[in-house]
Amino acid sequence: VTVSDFSERDLIARFQRHLAPPPDWLLVGIGDDAAVVETERNRAEVLTVDGVVDGIHFDRAFVPPDAIGHRALAVNLSDLAAMGAKPRLALVAMALPAEFPVGDFDAIACGLATLASTYGLHVVGGNLTRTPGPLSIDVTVVGTVKPRQALRRSGARAGDDLYVTGSIGGAAAGLEMLRDFANTTATGGRAAVSLGDSSCVARYLRPDPRVRIGTLLGRNRVASACMDLSDGLADAVRQLAAASGVGARLDGAALPIEPAARDWFASRGVDPLTAAVTRGDDYELLIAVRPRLKRQLAAVIRHADVPLTRVGVCTPLPHAEDPVTIDGQPMSSGYSHFR
Amino acid sequence: VTVSDFSERDLIARFQRHLAPPPDWLLVGIGDDAAVVETERNRAEVLTVDGVVDGIHFDRAFVPPDAIGHRALAVNLSDLAAMGAKPRLALVAMALPAEFPVGDFDAIACGLATLASTYGLHVVGGNLTRTPGPLSIDVTVVGTVKPRQALRRSGARAGDDLYVTGSIGGAAAGLEMLRDFANTTATGGRAAVSLGDSSCVARYLRPDPRVRIGTLLGRNRVASACMDLSDGLADAVRQLAAASGVGARLDGAALPIEPAARDWFASRGVDPLTAAVTRGDDYELLIAVRPRLKRQLAAVIRHADVPLTRVGVCTPLPHAEDPVTIDGQPMSSGYSHFR
Repeated sequence: VTVSDFSERDLIARFQRHLAPPPDWLLVGIGDDAAVVETERNRAEVLTVDGVVDGIHFDRAFVPPDAIGHRALAVNLSDLAAMGAKPRLALVAMALPAEFPVGDFDAIACGLATLASTYGLHVVGGNLTRTPGPLSIDVTVVGTVKPRQALRRSGARAGDDLYVTGSIGGAAAGLEMLRDFANTTATGGRAAVSLGDSSCVARYLRPDPRVRIGTLLGRNRVASACMDLSDGLADAVRQLAAASGVGARLDGAALPIEPAARDWFASRGVDPLTAAVTRGDDYELLIAVRPRLKRQLAAVIRHADVPLTRVGVCTPLPHAEDPVTIDGQPMSSGYSHFR
Repeated sequence: VTVSDFSERDLIARFQRHLAPPPDWLLVGIGDDAAVVETERNRAEVLTVDGVVDGIHFDRAFVPPDAIGHRALAVNLSDLAAMGAKPRLALVAMALPAEFPVGDFDAIACGLATLASTYGLHVVGGNLTRTPGPLSIDVTVVGTVKPRQALRRSGARAGDDLYVTGSIGGAAAGLEMLRDFANTTATGGRAAVSLGDSSCVARYLRPDPRVRIGTLLGRNRVASACMDLSDGLADAVRQLAAASGVGARLDGAALPIEPAARDWFASRGVDPLTAAVTRGDDYELLIAVRPRLKRQLAAVIRHADVPLTRVGVCTPLPHAEDPVTIDGQPMSSGYSHFR
């Protein structure tokens, strides 16, 4: 049974079944030309849109549909977290191939709605369309923040310490494991990994957006700059440094590389450090903190649900071509979408 | 030169060149993890997302890229108009095939930005991604409205008059003309229409969202229900009637069918009335008005930039299966996305 067996209205109704009851502030919900919402007093709004496309950001061959729904929202929540914003609402635009199984459609809705309810976010609207191309999902999210508590990329100064939440490299290793598993089993071989056991696979399939520590950092005004690592640590450090007009020096030995990812890359003859800093899909946060705020940062860490690791320091902008170094070497950049 | 010759950042910069200077209320614009905006006091927010996909909603073979950009935003502004909302901001998510010409990308940005500035709407963010599929654009728009002035689909009562803005059928005829022109010239023949002359082609390529009359109707609280005609008049009347729990009776002779479209369909042996009510792409508004508000409606019409035509009346919900009739006959329904 595919989505072509249903009308657009049927599919919207199926999606809605997974959603929590509408909140008070939703004046007009799904089913009209647009949603109408009350705004929150004394808060600025934080808005972002991000999309996932089958064959580019995931592969239906080895990513289950509920994980696709989870990821489509998680990448956006990560952007809100990086601004210190509390998630509020989302709009979901899906382009579906005609032969797309309706069971997979339901599972996408379920994965997305489950993550939404974890963060108290409500899906207020969306759009469904056919496509002659691959499945793709664009999610727009709106969060709220006190205007002076929004975390930008541009506030770092020379001397600020750089921290990373959680661990890096896990998602990239998990993606390789899944690909390997899909290829091996497709050719009738025995897979090298048991997927259920791997923390890396879980990191890839169901990234945890760092919403809690992001809002804590904003509220306590501890971070001078913040951004997320969607395109890898190397790319994030470069961008934060460029936006702030500083250089950065990272300490390779300090990086919180996921142990299972380190082993995986080493076993493949790939340098774990390079893989961990250049590959994407780690939805962690990179944070710059003035050294004098160390004590306030410690208080945030005590209340956070994820560890924070010091990985380097911001420097004055050097005269050399590459303003960002790791262990003294210019750092190769991350994933680039088009080139 | 294609988009693959550029980085994502280069493309974002190219897009930005077409945008108006950022408004005061935009606290953080393009270039951070998300946009941060001040909300408007005493206003509710109206949010919607809609998408266009090459091969489904338009065809790059005969729709120029600036018209694609125009359309991608116009379909959303039409939804805001149908709610009585004033456009405020948009987020633009584009999926680009690798071989997409960068000149066409610029033209899309130009078409979208030109329409945005017409309505004082600012593009505050977006997303660009590659796709192995066709070009697609999802636009999310946010507008503002006084909470009690939002126009819903559900407020019509039996006895309310039904009105339509502008004219219908033009866009559908224009689409056929463009297809015909593309086919004829591709096979070396001489096209039957001179495209530059046709009002229908212009209606298809550059729909005018009915923002002005939508906000006037909201502000004057004249409409008991309103929605836009994106999927055709038949579909809109059905949906408005269903949401309001009424039936509807349309008068075929009263319908404001675009004269050039009437001629075109007749010359093709297609019933102009059927074509005009069942085909989509007319971004007009369908409005229900209590008969006692006729004088207030006349005042709105005097200030509007588009004519309004009475096309029928809402009735009590009949016992028959089809609650919507035209000239006494059950009305066939409009375009359905999936089935």
